[in-house]
Amino acid sequence: MTNPILNPVAKQHRDNTFSEYEVALANRNSGTLLESLQQEVTPVGAHYLLSHFDIPFVNDAANWDLNFHGCFDSPFTLNFNDLTNYPEITQRVTLECAGNGRRLVAPHWPSQPWGHEAVGTADWTGVRLGDLLEQASISPACTEIVFHGTDTGIDGGAVHNFARSLDVEMAQHPDVMLAYAMNGQPLAPQHGYPLRLIVPGWYGMASVKWLSEIEAIDHAFQGHQQVGTYVYREKAGDTGIPVTEMRIRSLLVPPGIPDWSTRKRLLKPGNTKIVGRAWCGGGRPVAKVELGIDDQWHEATLTPATSPYAWSHWEAEWLATEGHHIVSCRATDAQGSCQPIEPYWDTAGFGNNAVQRVEVWCEDY
Amino acid sequence: MTNPILNPVAKQHRDNTFSEYEVALANRNSGTLLESLQQEVTPVGAHYLLSHFDIPFVNDAANWDLNFHGCFDSPFTLNFNDLTNYPEITQRVTLECAGNGRRLVAPHWPSQPWGHEAVGTADWTGVRLGDLLEQASISPACTEIVFHGTDTGIDGGAVHNFARSLDVEMAQHPDVMLAYAMNGQPLAPQHGYPLRLIVPGWYGMASVKWLSEIEAIDHAFQGHQQVGTYVYREKAGDTGIPVTEMRIRSLLVPPGIPDWSTRKRLLKPGNTKIVGRAWCGGGRPVAKVELGIDDQWHEATLTPATSPYAWSHWEAEWLATEGHHIVSCRATDAQGSCQPIEPYWDTAGFGNNAVQRVEVWCEDY
Repeated sequence: MTNPILNPVAKQHRDNTFSEYEVALANRNSGTLLESLQQEVTPVGAHYLLSHFDIPFVNDAANWDLNFHGCFDSPFTLNFNDLTNYPEITQRVTLECAGNGRRLVAPHWPSQPWGHEAVGTADWTGVRLGDLLEQASISPACTEIVFHGTDTGIDGGAVHNFARSLDVEMAQHPDVMLAYAMNGQPLAPQHGYPLRLIVPGWYGMASVKWLSEIEAIDHAFQGHQQVGTYVYREKAGDTGIPVTEMRIRSLLVPPGIPDWSTRKRLLKPGNTKIVGRAWCGGGRPVAKVELGIDDQWHEATLTPATSPYAWSHWEAEWLATEGHHIVSCRATDAQGSCQPIEPYWDTAGFGNNAVQRVEVWCEDY
Repeated sequence: MTNPILNPVAKQHRDNTFSEYEVALANRNSGTLLESLQQEVTPVGAHYLLSHFDIPFVNDAANWDLNFHGCFDSPFTLNFNDLTNYPEITQRVTLECAGNGRRLVAPHWPSQPWGHEAVGTADWTGVRLGDLLEQASISPACTEIVFHGTDTGIDGGAVHNFARSLDVEMAQHPDVMLAYAMNGQPLAPQHGYPLRLIVPGWYGMASVKWLSEIEAIDHAFQGHQQVGTYVYREKAGDTGIPVTEMRIRSLLVPPGIPDWSTRKRLLKPGNTKIVGRAWCGGGRPVAKVELGIDDQWHEATLTPATSPYAWSHWEAEWLATEGHHIVSCRATDAQGSCQPIEPYWDTAGFGNNAVQRVEVWCEDY
């Protein structure tokens, strides 16, 4: 028998049903509960979580080393406890999975089948990556910095540890950080304990968890997580365009009460306050949010974000009338880029920022 | 148009594909990562979570009241802060969702499509329910105590808050508790902040979250979550048998490294330690665990549980030979009840304690 893990058959897109392994991925990975969008900071344990491989459980951070090697003039190894020698910073950052919304791209790519729930906001505490890179002294020949996690598995038939690169300029960006705390507590095992990268403004794949090696290289990194996936492609086999910053997006807290299984909403007619969050990549502010009622758009009240990399709260009033409604929202950034009604096509369903549509049945109960 | 939430069409069993709303439920509800079975206590945020309706976010426990009413001789209302007047207890309890394994019953019922991951163990801190019932003084006419949560929604076409009952004897069991802390921290919003019931030894549906009312009644409670669901039924419409204590079960940490999408395992040949957990309902100990390699069973080494209601650690050595293997485990309780190889039939997929089967490809890489 041929080992199908190391010799995988090419995946096929699927229409409106899902396979058992897609369901298993959905159970394994955790979405943020949409009602928690009421909260500025997502409660611990409710933040979305995508784990490519198994969680490496680390018993004691004191034994954790971070090794700087490759094209550095002063390569060195830092123990976790040495991090206290660098200035501590805390940043509020909204992270979204690049695959958020994959399920809603038709036909869909068989992978983690996110709807809208792969986004969350946390206060991350740690040190600036730039301070450490300065100490390691990047050689002139270096073009990229590679971040290696200890989590290991197989994807596309290749055994590898999770690893991603940034170009030298982005790696030196003052807001890129190594985080050891989330919402004031040590990182949970599943969020990268003891140490992870945080690349604010980018989709979550860049924020490598269980970070153990930082490697300076003089060529383009060819790891699977860099070039095999997390690339926008019209069709499989295209070179494509790397996935980087989050696209403009907004979500709303579904109003009324839910049906257990379909999650459709029942709402009493009358004045209803709709609240939600909106965000944009690259530290750019959200310029406008609109509430959509049955595809009629009304400008919402937007509260400025509490950090350049955090989502903004928005709210709007709706006089809900009896009957069936589709409630949605869309955000626009300062450059006029606005969420599309229908998803952009991407073969693997990355970067789907199409508007959320919530089905609401409005009647007295 | 007829409102389909209040007038739902009868569900149908499904074969080996899943609908979009099953996938949405799987994203919304969170499974425990199987590799976290290495841990005696499941890390905060990694404990399985099933939310029937929306999470009620409570800003301040100090405003939370628990109202004892109905057939009590001394009905009263307790403020959250009054709980400090009662002796505090902490119990380590393994909780499992009654629907754990539903996806593996064929054909499967379209609801939260759990595989094996809906189980976790936590240290719960709070007070004995019995101490409060004694103060409220149960009237002789009372037959059941109903526990009301504030979470509200629709299931089976009926609007209701989540509510479950226990008979008077079970409600007075000294180990049934009201919990306000989990693993030494205040309950997270999604785990029932500020107060929940914990019924050790029973499936999780009994442990009502966001507990706000305790009602003594003189008849059999007919709430949807008591008689409409959480009942073992051969077919829809049967009166059936209420789901109560957890059935004997064991799980193993999948060995080797995972394939990202299929979660099949790749393992190097050689001596391999397999570890896992086993548990049983009703505070009964696990008597034996066996490791199954290609359906050949070998007794594992079982460590006694650290609490009557917590799972037990087990481990076994396996000399893994090159090729394809099915690795499984099964537990037996002191009465000789053993996990079945194939699931027991239940129309809604409750109580599936059939053995876990992990596909492992063993070769050097």
